[in-house]
Amino acid sequence: MLKVAVIMGSDSDFPKVKSCLEKLKYFGIPFETHVYSAHRTPEEAANFAKNAKENGFGVIISAAGKAAHLGGVLAAYTTLPIIGIPIKSDALDGLDAMLSTIMMPPGVPVATVAIDGCANAAILAAQIIALTDEGLANKLAEEKIKMAEGVRAKDAKLQEEIKNI
Amino acid sequence: MLKVAVIMGSDSDFPKVKSCLEKLKYFGIPFETHVYSAHRTPEEAANFAKNAKENGFGVIISAAGKAAHLGGVLAAYTTLPIIGIPIKSDALDGLDAMLSTIMMPPGVPVATVAIDGCANAAILAAQIIALTDEGLANKLAEEKIKMAEGVRAKDAKLQEEIKNI
Amino acid sequence: MLKVAVIMGSDSDFPKVKSCLEKLKYFGIPFETHVYSAHRTPEEAANFAKNAKENGFGVIISAAGKAAHLGGVLAAYTTLPIIGIPIKSDALDGLDAMLSTIMMPPGVPVATVAIDGCANAAILAAQIIALTDEGLANKLAEEKIKMAEGVRAKDAKLQEEIKNI
Amino acid sequence: MLKVAVIMGSDSDFPKVKSCLEKLKYFGIPFETHVYSAHRTPEEAANFAKNAKENGFGVIISAAGKAAHLGGVLAAYTTLPIIGIPIKSDALDGLDAMLSTIMMPPGVPVATVAIDGCANAAILAAQIIALTDEGLANKLAEEKIKMAEGVRAKDAKLQEEIKNI
Amino acid sequence: MLKVAVIMGSDSDFPKVKSCLEKLKYFGIPFETHVYSAHRTPEEAANFAKNAKENGFGVIISAAGKAAHLGGVLAAYTTLPIIGIPIKSDALDGLDAMLSTIMMPPGVPVATVAIDGCANAAILAAQIIALTDEGLANKLAEEKIKMAEGVRAKDAKLQEEIKNI
Amino acid sequence: MLKVAVIMGSDSDFPKVKSCLEKLKYFGIPFETHVYSAHRTPEEAANFAKNAKENGFGVIISAAGKAAHLGGVLAAYTTLPIIGIPIKSDALDGLDAMLSTIMMPPGVPVATVAIDGCANAAILAAQIIALTDEGLANKLAEEKIKMAEGVRAKDAKLQEEIKNI
Amino acid sequence: MLKVAVIMGSDSDFPKVKSCLEKLKYFGIPFETHVYSAHRTPEEAANFAKNAKENGFGVIISAAGKAAHLGGVLAAYTTLPIIGIPIKSDALDGLDAMLSTIMMPPGVPVATVAIDGCANAAILAAQIIALTDEGLANKLAEEKIKMAEGVRAKDAKLQEEIKNI
Amino acid sequence: MLKVAVIMGSDSDFPKVKSCLEKLKYFGIPFETHVYSAHRTPEEAANFAKNAKENGFGVIISAAGKAAHLGGVLAAYTTLPIIGIPIKSDALDGLDAMLSTIMMPPGVPVATVAIDGCANAAILAAQIIALTDEGLANKLAEEKIKMAEGVRAKDAKLQEEIKNI
Repeated sequence: MLKVAVIMGSDSDFPKVKSCLEKLKYFGIPFETHVYSAHRTPEEAANFAKNAKENGFGVIISAAGKAAHLGGVLAAYTTLPIIGIPIKSDALDGLDAMLSTIMMPPGVPVATVAIDGCANAAILAAQIIALTDEGLANKLAEEKIKMAEGVRAKDAKLQEEIKNI
Repeated sequence: MLKVAVIMGSDSDFPKVKSCLEKLKYFGIPFETHVYSAHRTPEEAANFAKNAKENGFGVIISAAGKAAHLGGVLAAYTTLPIIGIPIKSDALDGLDAMLSTIMMPPGVPVATVAIDGCANAAILAAQIIALTDEGLANKLAEEKIKMAEGVRAKDAKLQEEIKNI
Repeated sequence: MLKVAVIMGSDSDFPKVKSCLEKLKYFGIPFETHVYSAHRTPEEAANFAKNAKENGFGVIISAAGKAAHLGGVLAAYTTLPIIGIPIKSDALDGLDAMLSTIMMPPGVPVATVAIDGCANAAILAAQIIALTDEGLANKLAEEKIKMAEGVRAKDAKLQEEIKNI
Repeated sequence: MLKVAVIMGSDSDFPKVKSCLEKLKYFGIPFETHVYSAHRTPEEAANFAKNAKENGFGVIISAAGKAAHLGGVLAAYTTLPIIGIPIKSDALDGLDAMLSTIMMPPGVPVATVAIDGCANAAILAAQIIALTDEGLANKLAEEKIKMAEGVRAKDAKLQEEIKNI
Repeated sequence: MLKVAVIMGSDSDFPKVKSCLEKLKYFGIPFETHVYSAHRTPEEAANFAKNAKENGFGVIISAAGKAAHLGGVLAAYTTLPIIGIPIKSDALDGLDAMLSTIMMPPGVPVATVAIDGCANAAILAAQIIALTDEGLANKLAEEKIKMAEGVRAKDAKLQEEIKNI
Repeated sequence: MLKVAVIMGSDSDFPKVKSCLEKLKYFGIPFETHVYSAHRTPEEAANFAKNAKENGFGVIISAAGKAAHLGGVLAAYTTLPIIGIPIKSDALDGLDAMLSTIMMPPGVPVATVAIDGCANAAILAAQIIALTDEGLANKLAEEKIKMAEGVRAKDAKLQEEIKNI
Repeated sequence: MLKVAVIMGSDSDFPKVKSCLEKLKYFGIPFETHVYSAHRTPEEAANFAKNAKENGFGVIISAAGKAAHLGGVLAAYTTLPIIGIPIKSDALDGLDAMLSTIMMPPGVPVATVAIDGCANAAILAAQIIALTDEGLANKLAEEKIKMAEGVRAKDAKLQEEIKNI
Repeated sequence: MLKVAVIMGSDSDFPKVKSCLEKLKYFGIPFETHVYSAHRTPEEAANFAKNAKENGFGVIISAAGKAAHLGGVLAAYTTLPIIGIPIKSDALDGLDAMLSTIMMPPGVPVATVAIDGCANAAILAAQIIALTDEGLANKLAEEKIKMAEGVRAKDAKLQEEIKNI
């Protein structure tokens, strides 16, 4: 199966990014993860992206906050799909990271998910990898059914809770 | 090759979405395009998404403005990757469509590109499809080189232009 | 009396939505409430909306956060008035849910109330149902008078409090 | 049939509000329209709202721009449902009018539609009035079908247009 | 001396508004304060404003949050200068109250101060009243000198604090 | 009568500020106007403010765009009331000027009006000056009546216009 | 004298960036200018920055729009001061470029000027270079005086213009 | 070596500004720091800026919140480069201070860093001063290497942490 890389711009993003890694593991997708900073270790980031395809990666997930350039910097050096997770930091409620990640110029897209949408980035990566792996596609379909069942169970539970209103 | 679907919420989006279709054609990616509205023809949208995988699609691109629910509605009915293009309309400068497309809840991601980023959506789709098609992967790599050459040519031309400053 | 449906996109919205249900009960309006997700159980949401009129509902209240598509998805399947409550979540202070709910395209309105305006959604529903029920109209008129008396009582209390300034 | 009132804060809003009036006429809903300013003729606005119910109105639509207080001022004097249309003006892209209309305090809701959503305000009013008039309810259902057919026709036309791409 | 009225839209604003009252007292300006709601007791608000001039008031300060219409409603009924304080509430960080207060239409200004700028509203009122009272003008001038001395004292203290850096 | 000063940060603001001057003239209020820049001629701005009171001014109106510091700079040197007009410029729709003018720190308020609210600044100045001039107070009261009559005339005209709908 | 580099992300930025180059020429500062894209020619951008110091540059000015990563990418490869100009593009009024440029993470600052502030970037570069060149420092001081004289001339002219009001 | 001045608008900014001073000390750059308010002690601020160059300063760092005029006021009186730090305060998440600092008019730039970017302001000042001091330039180069090593160490540590996922 194609591997997924999860690159974070700072180790301070790890507590949020963890749910992305857990979701990838849950789907049985092989992954690597690194702290590469677009601004502090730009060459590591560039080299990783340049070689990612021949190293067996199919998708790169990037997580960064503030002026989040990491997704764009990785996208500059590869034609693999890049998924960007804008990480909310102390000011501006994640808007800075979101705009820095999504508003890419013509020719170099970054597939951006919601602010702090770490688990969703893993699901999106799984959806992409699943085009090359029918087993994973089936898992995603099953997961979608389980998710609906989860909502239905909560609806049933709600009917109990409202009896006290 | 896996097909790409390009769904727009209104035919008024077509002048912008056209560049997406042209780019797909340029890459030789088979595509279908439809006007399906999340709010006016929700069942067509749902049915298309439900059957997209077995109908040979690998990626669905969705373009919509204002309270742009189309990407999310399609994503609700399929496990294929959905790419969302927020279309700028008369008020709020595209911010409404961007937030409506990107801020998806856990479990159902939409890969969002820049406001009016129609050509970039096609490139992202191509990057995803290329995981299953080495010829397309090569085209993307060539295109990246051409793009760089284009910038270099503009840099050379700039050296002429600044002589008059 | 026509019933009111209160649909929430996630059970995590229940602590806020509770005040909506309490207000409906206070007015003696019969209601049903469900967790239906626009993205995780879209068919339940669609079916509920399609049958709401013949099932005796007069108004549907929808509460959802982030890319809040629930109001629009329900509105797509019914001609009953839909009231949307944007729920504030971790990022962007409710702006995402507000724009996703209010900026509906031509033909499919959602009557949007303030961010987390759950009790107000119930009052708005009551105002609408009251067009068909004079008793409820009278209760609303009495309630308006009580509300004014409450403000007057607070003004009187304030006159005491400022003596210490 | 219950009447609908359409109150605009300034005659400069008329070119936009016109589509609201045309839509009401199309549905055969009796309406009255006035220029009443929350700030320049507050007593006319207040008196109109106070007497609206006994004068046969079922819904009041309010359209105003900038610090759009009109919806709230009308809501202060009646228990009829108030629909607010935020009108975009020269600065801030309609955000000022939207926030001024939608963020109402507890007890006094305004059902807010999209910025410049004048036709949608009429449809929402029709949906509300239709609770008391089955003929209107049927018209709304037919209109929904026509709207879907319109989208389907555009989809068909699109298939022609893309042949030249 | 002309009196200042301080009107708040809800008693929940009192903890913030208190500093406004204290500042007025500090300057020796006679004041009255009330809870009058633009939406829940609109007639009290209107009547107060209508009679304010003949009742000896020179300035009205208004404090309100969310869709803060109070300043505008008071301004509608008087030609006295109205000072508006936008109060920050749970969502949108005070932006809603600020835009609702400041973006008044032609003919009816509200002199808006910073979000939660309660003490500054009192100072602005004092500056206005001081045009009619030379003693107050002198106090304001003295206060300005004291304020500068306070900053100078803090600068001196800072020189001590930085010795440990 | 106390004079009003109208200071603009750049002569490019004059086309907008003109309506402020016309309104002051209409009210018969003596005024002076200057181009003083907070950043390019800070000493002229400071000197003007320092001497404004003894030179017979009662109010200073300041108009500036972008990082609009002019109101704050003038307020730093006087205890006269300062009215700030945020001027919209090429980017950010006036939000920059509005926040730069209104969000003043404790002790130094600027009475801010709407973006480009030049005529309203004049009316606010007139309301302040009127505390010292009963004739002007009467003019303001008459003007308020005329303004209401103007709205009523427009309402009457609207009744004609809608006959064609 | 140390040279200034002016790097733009796209030749479409040239019409705005031109005023930066003209201002540098006016100050007699030697400069080079290039189109280097952070995303399309990342290696040219990186190489330029890496060698800029030994190639005699003292400051690098970067101009880019949308997800403007150029300033950050250059800053990643040099310890020279980087000045960033956010360029306004079709959507979001320049806010995207501003946040992408200014919100740099710890360790790698970009000195950001106003949206489209091209001439100001040149002045800032001149102020920095002037620390090493007394002649340039004198020119800047003279320019400041001229700028003030320009404002004074406009103030004088304004006195004529207002005679017709 | 040229000195750096660090001016804060209020002593309440000191806890944040401290990291700026510590960073300057770390680089061995001589500095002075003061509390000078643009609005409460404008003359101290102006005098400091006017004399800064001849007093041996090379750069002035300014830190202020809300309507942050301090950077602009200092820039008005000197041709030294001014670095502005927007300080986040209670409302608007720092956006007010950022726009007030960065959106300077033509002729008077302020080099703005991220919201609360105090340490980065010191690094930017060091980069500027380093143009006149090769020893400092070397320290900055070494620091950049250390920073990269720090990231690499965190990447290595991350490889351990993910073993438990």
